Amino acid sequence: MNSPYSKPRKLKELDFECGFIQLLSQLTDIGDVSLSRFRQTLNTLPSAIHVYVIENKNSGKVVATATLLVEQKFIHSCGSVGHIEDVVVASEYRGRNLGRILVQHLSHLAESLGCYKTILDCSSKFVPFYEKCGFSCKGSQMSVYY
Amino acid sequence: MNSPYSKPRKLKELDFECGFIQLLSQLTDIGDVSLSRFRQTLNTLPSAIHVYVIENKNSGKVVATATLLVEQKFIHSCGSVGHIEDVVVASEYRGRNLGRILVQHLSHLAESLGCYKTILDCSSKFVPFYEKCGFSCKGSQMSVYY
Repeated sequence: MNSPYSKPRKLKELDFECGFIQLLSQLTDIGDVSLSRFRQTLNTLPSAIHVYVIENKNSGKVVATATLLVEQKFIHSCGSVGHIEDVVVASEYRGRNLGRILVQHLSHLAESLGCYKTILDCSSKFVPFYEKCGFSCKGSQMSVYY
Repeated sequence: MNSPYSKPRKLKELDFECGFIQLLSQLTDIGDVSLSRFRQTLNTLPSAIHVYVIENKNSGKVVATATLLVEQKFIHSCGSVGHIEDVVVASEYRGRNLGRILVQHLSHLAESLGCYKTILDCSSKFVPFYEKCGFSCKGSQMSVYY
């Protein structure tokens, strides 16, 4: 049987109409993102930022997203590190491996782009999920809000 | 009495001769970073990456460094998040607040660039240091190496 889900693919302008922002709102506060603001952000996104989605091919809706940020460093022979950010699967599509497929796709992308490692931050309840994706606990995330 | 240490300033080409790579080697494996590789990396660094140093004005040597990476997002009204990376103070200059000065400088820079928060990852032994810098524990860092 054919899967109703697309392979992970890059975010495109039409995804604004296909639920991308509503999907992100299941992750955190998305604030005010108009179509023109979305377009401007997408079209000026640095080349180091790779936003991927999975869509439901039947409905055309975006049902999962995750982002890879590639950071250029001086350490490790001027190597690069991948950062996985903003992973979310629409609530009604959880438990179908879409998150794992996206995260592993981005991890492979990071490796193919020459990164020597990929890192991410998560709350403790998601540690088992990321372990299934091949990640191991490494340290503590700290933050300051303005 | 005048401080023998500069204010935090942006990394420049001449810092290669002033111990920048040796300083980073106190943090992790730096691999092979020739002058030409250093120059090429510095001169093509994305504008979202801000590498800062503190120098000893008496010796001209770079004695501390830290990097701010500014990440463009779609969440939070297409807001930005700062990532602090690669913080290191030369072993013989520790205990003089240089790390805290650098980290707080980069946190203020992130705020002035419009970031709604700044995050960083560290091992548990550095949690008290970053708490003194204004950060709070938030979650777990996970990683995969290639």
